[in-house]
Amino acid sequence: MQSMRHFVISSLPRAVAGRYLSTTATLNMPIKEGDKLPSVDLYEGDPGTKVNTKDLFGKGKSVIFAVPGAFTPTCSEKHAPGFIQNISQLRDKGVTTVACIGVNDPFVMGAWGKALGADDKVRMLADTGATFTKKIEMDVDLTAVLGGVRSKRYAMVVQDGVVKAIKAEPDNTGLACSAAIEVMKLL
Amino acid sequence: MQSMRHFVISSLPRAVAGRYLSTTATLNMPIKEGDKLPSVDLYEGDPGTKVNTKDLFGKGKSVIFAVPGAFTPTCSEKHAPGFIQNISQLRDKGVTTVACIGVNDPFVMGAWGKALGADDKVRMLADTGATFTKKIEMDVDLTAVLGGVRSKRYAMVVQDGVVKAIKAEPDNTGLACSAAIEVMKLL
Repeated sequence: MQSMRHFVISSLPRAVAGRYLSTTATLNMPIKEGDKLPSVDLYEGDPGTKVNTKDLFGKGKSVIFAVPGAFTPTCSEKHAPGFIQNISQLRDKGVTTVACIGVNDPFVMGAWGKALGADDKVRMLADTGATFTKKIEMDVDLTAVLGGVRSKRYAMVVQDGVVKAIKAEPDNTGLACSAAIEVMKLL
Repeated sequence: MQSMRHFVISSLPRAVAGRYLSTTATLNMPIKEGDKLPSVDLYEGDPGTKVNTKDLFGKGKSVIFAVPGAFTPTCSEKHAPGFIQNISQLRDKGVTTVACIGVNDPFVMGAWGKALGADDKVRMLADTGATFTKKIEMDVDLTAVLGGVRSKRYAMVVQDGVVKAIKAEPDNTGLACSAAIEVMKLL
């Protein structure tokens, strides 16, 4: 079942992706090592609670991981739990903030965090309109299975607002290089 | 907090709604008493499990209720629980199928159903791409708070695939006439 579901999500036609590469997307490369994170408002728990990326990630060492979908099998059973379970090791390596970003609405991201036990370990941030995700060119059209643009699966280490390392999954939605265990090697 | 959140969702600018009234929408009135339900594939639990509306609602007496968002406060705390708690009374009145439809992805609808204890009481159906919702002209643009087109809040009684009664909330997202207790008066 797990492999079937993964197949469903990772075997999308790539040809339709252009529709959503809207005017908000830059024409540069996807975000890379040395780039500054853009300043974008994300939402935590409800649409009234803004968290600005510059405020949250501008000071100290942060780990960000992004998921194609809250409550999807790979994200729920493996990707997010990896960071939650390893929070002590991440903190030991000087990480002050661990955040999960998904193009879901804030209520769904919040409920998913509760279901996972993210608590005060991982901030569950909704990129509701995919603004952040498009700005860093990590958007992927998952309309066929999830109803719209979502985020590719990636993880990055950010120091004082600047990307120190980034690992994006080559197939967009699989889980290998962006897993917590791999990210910890970059710290 | 509840009232603030409700305000956030129900006070959206209506002027931007036109963007999403795409070519899939008909130019007729929203679905009304006496209309036949369109035949559309919805999804249950995952994107591989299709449930066709004609197959599911074509025979017998059904109650359908639709929600603006899985895991949103009014939907989670009041609307959906009302139908789940009153399932015995609904069955006593001859209802064979109770279904909740939301423009969320199938994983989110499934997870929400589990969180609510919908079990075998209420079918949690994802109108992933809003196809059904647009066809019956119940779509509403909630991009500002929830990231895209969602469903207006409504409930209907369907007999052998034909709408026998429908109650749509006048403000799209509030909860009054489409509550379980009101729907039971129509049976």
